[in-house]
Amino acid sequence: MPSSQRGTNQEAVRRHNLGTVLRHVHRTGEISRAQLTTAMGLNRSTIADLVGELAELRLTEHAEPGGGGTAARRTAGRPSAGVRVADEGPYVIAVDLGVDRAVVARVGLGGRAFERAEAAITHETEAWQVGASVAALIRHVVSWAPAEAPLLGIGISVPGLVRRSDGLVRQAPNLGWTDVSFGSIVQAALDLDVPVRLGNDADLGALAEHNRGAGLGVDDLIFISGNVGVGAGIISGGARLEGAVGYAGEVGHLNFDPRGPACHCGSQGCWETAVGAHVIAEALRSPGDQVHRLGEILDEVTTAPRELRPIATDIGRGLAAVVNAYNPSVVILGGYFRPMYRLLRAEVNAGLAERAMAPAFESVRLSLPGLGTDSVLLGAAENAFEPVFADPVASLATAVTDARSRLAG
Amino acid sequence: MPSSQRGTNQEAVRRHNLGTVLRHVHRTGEISRAQLTTAMGLNRSTIADLVGELAELRLTEHAEPGGGGTAARRTAGRPSAGVRVADEGPYVIAVDLGVDRAVVARVGLGGRAFERAEAAITHETEAWQVGASVAALIRHVVSWAPAEAPLLGIGISVPGLVRRSDGLVRQAPNLGWTDVSFGSIVQAALDLDVPVRLGNDADLGALAEHNRGAGLGVDDLIFISGNVGVGAGIISGGARLEGAVGYAGEVGHLNFDPRGPACHCGSQGCWETAVGAHVIAEALRSPGDQVHRLGEILDEVTTAPRELRPIATDIGRGLAAVVNAYNPSVVILGGYFRPMYRLLRAEVNAGLAERAMAPAFESVRLSLPGLGTDSVLLGAAENAFEPVFADPVASLATAVTDARSRLAG
Ligand SMILES: [Zn+2]
Ligand SMILES: [Zn+2]
Repeated sequence: MPSSQRGTNQEAVRRHNLGTVLRHVHRTGEISRAQLTTAMGLNRSTIADLVGELAELRLTEHAEPGGGGTAARRTAGRPSAGVRVADEGPYVIAVDLGVDRAVVARVGLGGRAFERAEAAITHETEAWQVGASVAALIRHVVSWAPAEAPLLGIGISVPGLVRRSDGLVRQAPNLGWTDVSFGSIVQAALDLDVPVRLGNDADLGALAEHNRGAGLGVDDLIFISGNVGVGAGIISGGARLEGAVGYAGEVGHLNFDPRGPACHCGSQGCWETAVGAHVIAEALRSPGDQVHRLGEILDEVTTAPRELRPIATDIGRGLAAVVNAYNPSVVILGGYFRPMYRLLRAEVNAGLAERAMAPAFESVRLSLPGLGTDSVLLGAAENAFEPVFADPVASLATAVTDARSRLAG
Repeated sequence: MPSSQRGTNQEAVRRHNLGTVLRHVHRTGEISRAQLTTAMGLNRSTIADLVGELAELRLTEHAEPGGGGTAARRTAGRPSAGVRVADEGPYVIAVDLGVDRAVVARVGLGGRAFERAEAAITHETEAWQVGASVAALIRHVVSWAPAEAPLLGIGISVPGLVRRSDGLVRQAPNLGWTDVSFGSIVQAALDLDVPVRLGNDADLGALAEHNRGAGLGVDDLIFISGNVGVGAGIISGGARLEGAVGYAGEVGHLNFDPRGPACHCGSQGCWETAVGAHVIAEALRSPGDQVHRLGEILDEVTTAPRELRPIATDIGRGLAAVVNAYNPSVVILGGYFRPMYRLLRAEVNAGLAERAMAPAFESVRLSLPGLGTDSVLLGAAENAFEPVFADPVASLATAVTDARSRLAG
């Protein structure tokens, strides 16, 4: 091997290790050098060099042993100096695009959501109008950021099919979108050359719950998004189940009742038509324009009205198909499925038991999200952070260092 | 690192490489040393050493360049000496256990099925009786084997849920089995200490079609088994989708019509109740005791009777759920779905188009199996061969070298 190529390879390995250290700090918030040495199987001096370089890049800071970080842990015996995410360090913008509402947050390393803003988008039928609203929310949130903190990228969650290769929104039935390059629309509305990564809402919910929620350490989990439509994000054997193009997990459109109503997807009687937000809103006699607040409305309910019970049973019956198809060990109920499960756990479980195959049923448990209502939003942030863990140096090179002033105009 | 440990690691790497060379020979039937050098990224002398050791172990033989092996390929320019699977070399026994019939074959390296035997098992309700029948077929087939050839192991396909950790058949609804350790039953009936590996029929069909059938080189494929019941074997991102315990892919038990008939699994209106063998047999007015011959009966049909058409549409409608759930690029229709698709392709495609989401539909194609009616049988063989590719030396140490005489009694 020529020495220049060897040098290039060594540099690639060093950057990879740098990113891996940063990922450990991000997952824990604060971690000791001793823990990093153990976790990465590298020697102490190599870890010290990597930690030093991350601090020079202003990605992390020195932490005193036991110094009160959120996840600080002392090792047995002599405490080891630690490293934590930098105050006023780099951040990403996370966008949770729902059917009727967009939520935007500024999220730092460590997964901490700082400022957030939201707006209804009910009457905006064109994708560019939605993009303009999202851009306004982003400007608002970035205006609160530290002046010097670099913006690494924007992560956007979409309730629809996102093509893995380029982030194109191929189909978002409940938004009425087909083939929308929403990332480019947001970049254009911001007039900013910033990396944008799109993902399916359920996939991103699964990512966040796996990294720092109810799915921590679970290799086979499913996150179900109830977000007007219904979808699943699937982690199988520790990795995302993507399918050939990135569309795996469209469980809202599994057959449920062939005599059921027409579905936005073009089919008929999909599971989503039996348990979607509009069905639940109707059972609650909630006005149709309040569908985007369905989760909050359900959170205020203390005793479930009788009309919700058959819907909860149908949630369980549909989950049986999910369990038979993927054999997960945990199913996390996100979106409005979260309060439905809290209110009507017995009905959901009964529907699942009725339809799931016994061995698959016995090996699964249902769970509320560990991240409350923020799974999808924080998943969009996790997705936006991915490049910095692959190569921190390259990611900082594409970051926007003057985002606050650039977006203030 | 102490030198003894280093020695152990080097030995492990050498055995791993030995297995990988053997896997290449197995997949191709015959391969040149130059091709092995390229495929494995090792130098010529290392490849020569490994090939020499495989020949000493009587796993492979020297092949003259262009010497007429089934898959011999000349490289451009100077032909390179090759290696092929050994004549009269080690073999496995493959067992395709259906609901009404068992097929047993002796399969050599290279995936060549030699002798085979089969028997109806319709009236055998107890698992041990089925095991005794299978053992008799195995004795029969082994009696034709070369006297000196080692039996590496037995691979068994079962139409049911097989626990990955130990091969227990947790549930086989159409056999009426719950928690049957069928591998041990066969070992007991043979009175032979031979490695036995069990797998789900659809998973094994997917394995064989991926290794040497219509799914060669396809990273996201699904094999649908129509074998009285209906199941799916899923390869996603190049690897088997297993689920937490090994039960993923039970697509025959996805919801289809809530007003449909009760299913053997305990649920109601599963897809299998609409497209299972008994429904097709009834449409053909075929006697109930001929269900195990359904594939052959359908193969003799040249014009499909009108009664089969709605079943074909329902096959397509159920495949839509499979496509929405997993986003495969190829779906291979095995078992009796193979002749159904041959006869009624338009109806199957129409059902699929009606129910699948457009982007997922556009990225998938349906296919007949590349291995005809042998996908599952050859998959059971592939599964039984796996240990010899992981470590040929260890696998030969557990092989039965006198199987023919031991089983002759
Ligand atoms: Zn639908
Ligand atoms: Zn069933």
